[in-house]
Amino acid sequence: MGRAEFEAKNIHRLFAQRILMLRTDRGWSQEVLAELAGLHRNYIGHVERDEINVGIENIFKLAIAFEMSIGELLTFDNQGEG
Amino acid sequence: MGRAEFEAKNIHRLFAQRILMLRTDRGWSQEVLAELAGLHRNYIGHVERDEINVGIENIFKLAIAFEMSIGELLTFDNQGEG
Repeated sequence: MGRAEFEAKNIHRLFAQRILMLRTDRGWSQEVLAELAGLHRNYIGHVERDEINVGIENIFKLAIAFEMSIGELLTFDNQGEG
Repeated sequence: MGRAEFEAKNIHRLFAQRILMLRTDRGWSQEVLAELAGLHRNYIGHVERDEINVGIENIFKLAIAFEMSIGELLTFDNQGEG
């Protein structure tokens, strides 16, 4: 349980970093990503600052905005490290 | 936006079906899955009956229980249909 608990905390940060990286790689403002995903701009800020436990529905909307499958969006290079 | 909204609703049901299928394929009770994921048995029931917007942290705990990456867990055969 220790490892699962530890990594479950990390998944938030990994996801926040992933969204920030994908967005800035494309040269999009938070407003552009929000528009494409059908979410509020402030919500994107919360996600990128790791202030929120994002639900599957909004993860899916973000995947659509990036034109990725939800599986691709949630594939982290460093998943499983440590 | 219509399509994204429509599919965002579907993602709940796809996820519910995926968890139910993976659990029953392994012959696990809800209690066994709950134990492995560090979640409450009632929570597993809510997920499988599509009554809850599962957050990324609990998605990750479920992935660990099934010994899958979160990306694998969220790869649906019928994603993108329609």
